[in-house]
Amino acid sequence: MKHLLLIGIGPGNPRQITLEAIDALNRAEVFFVLDKGAAKDDMLRLRKELLERHVNRPYRLVQVEDPLRDGEASDYVGAVQDWHRQRAALYGRLIDSELADGQSGAFLLWGEPGLYDSTLRILELVEHQHFSLEVIPGISSVQALAARHRIPLNRIGEPLTVLPGRRLAEQAQIDNLVVMLDGHCAFAQLEDPDLHIYWGAYLGTPDELLIEGPLLAVKAQILAQREQARARKGWIMDTYLLRRR
Amino acid sequence: MKHLLLIGIGPGNPRQITLEAIDALNRAEVFFVLDKGAAKDDMLRLRKELLERHVNRPYRLVQVEDPLRDGEASDYVGAVQDWHRQRAALYGRLIDSELADGQSGAFLLWGEPGLYDSTLRILELVEHQHFSLEVIPGISSVQALAARHRIPLNRIGEPLTVLPGRRLAEQAQIDNLVVMLDGHCAFAQLEDPDLHIYWGAYLGTPDELLIEGPLLAVKAQILAQREQARARKGWIMDTYLLRRR
Ligand SMILES: C[S@@+](CC[C@H](N)C(=O)[O-])C[C@H]1O[C@@H](n2cnc3c(N)ncnc32)[C@H](O)[C@@H]1O
Ligand SMILES: C[S@@+](CC[C@H](N)C(=O)[O-])C[C@H]1O[C@@H](n2cnc3c(N)ncnc32)[C@H](O)[C@@H]1O
Repeated sequence: MKHLLLIGIGPGNPRQITLEAIDALNRAEVFFVLDKGAAKDDMLRLRKELLERHVNRPYRLVQVEDPLRDGEASDYVGAVQDWHRQRAALYGRLIDSELADGQSGAFLLWGEPGLYDSTLRILELVEHQHFSLEVIPGISSVQALAARHRIPLNRIGEPLTVLPGRRLAEQAQIDNLVVMLDGHCAFAQLEDPDLHIYWGAYLGTPDELLIEGPLLAVKAQILAQREQARARKGWIMDTYLLRRR
Repeated sequence: MKHLLLIGIGPGNPRQITLEAIDALNRAEVFFVLDKGAAKDDMLRLRKELLERHVNRPYRLVQVEDPLRDGEASDYVGAVQDWHRQRAALYGRLIDSELADGQSGAFLLWGEPGLYDSTLRILELVEHQHFSLEVIPGISSVQALAARHRIPLNRIGEPLTVLPGRRLAEQAQIDNLVVMLDGHCAFAQLEDPDLHIYWGAYLGTPDELLIEGPLLAVKAQILAQREQARARKGWIMDTYLLRRR
């Protein structure tokens, strides 16, 4: 039997890792790194830093070129599912060739493994491999956002909704809404004067940016700072909370 | 100036605390403990264990009897707001009498400070005291639930909603729904045959209970186990994810 550890490492601050995650790092012989996109070098740097600082035993780092996803496909869910199947084949080959029986392999997952991360779903699609699975929670960027703005995610007794940018437009009623994965700045389309936004980028890193205010008043400032930062660093990761007054 | 640290300590497993939280514990001179209800002895035990294990400097623990809230009031939000004002007066007195200028006081908050925790809101209501505030995120019970069931919180591209039990009945469409604070087992009222439930109690502790399955098939089992456990321990903390097939 092989064992896989899906370890949440937090959203960018190396101190935002749990003791449970550090324990888990020390139980793995092999670490799989499959980052993609413009941020991958910076994400890899954090992962290596965590391993160097916390792992006290020999380990192997396996870095893999990830199949690229068709970002412009019209059938979003279908395109993602195709891509998951390709990734599952790749993960299957890795588990087969890089892990011996009785060994443990780990995936270091950005933020919280359960929130907009596909690793669990992909591993469910892996065929012809036997492994047990363990998930270690990590601090999500949603929590880093709330902490840095010093706000609760929900108001008294109210629901909190977290969704990807592409689902923002269809949201009829916004009470407490956290938006992730919003490369197209969907917030810029909203014209409701009662909305307040708490925005954060590169949370927990030295590049962190925070802007907060009535949406209509700070929208332009967020767009400008966002574009500037993205141009300078080559990538951006941002998230925000929208709340009705 | 006085400084207040709101430190998330995770939902019950002493290893589910971050390095950032441990750093913060070591910056406080005074720890305020204001638990209430039947679980308070067990919650206090975890807090003391964390302090003993991780704090390497002298500190003071200030335990306070918390004003009880009127749980049966018909105006829920109004009753909570009244209770917050009473608590604010109490917190103000504590900050005044227990913290000297230049000192730091810490609140050890269960799970994630931004999720259904009133401390931030209460501190906003404190009058006549000057202090700076810092929030340290912690693993939430929502994340512990997903990790122990080895499931993602959301499916591809779908929103996730987190809400208190009293708001479950009015929820028209359930895709990915996490319910907290459900002392009345609101899930037992749902009759939709397409719902799947992932339930967890005492997550991260030696008493942990996990049940998963089609809601209609496992509902009775959850109710029975829940009642048994609550009778035995004197309190229960549980949360669950509902997902439409
Ligand atoms: C694929 S999702 C992964 C989310 C991750 N599992 C988490 O819990 O934060 C990537 C999205 O997370 C958000 N994100 C991740 N890290 C971030 C950070 N350090 N600052 C701001 N947003 C971040 C952004 O919205 C980004 O588009
Ligand atoms: C006042 S709220 C605080 C939530 C906390 N801030 C968090 O992030 O988990 C209390 C509710 O959290 C959930 N909860 C907290 N700890 C839990 C645990 N160890 N297992 C299951 N549910 C838990 C229960 O739904 C409980 O009613």
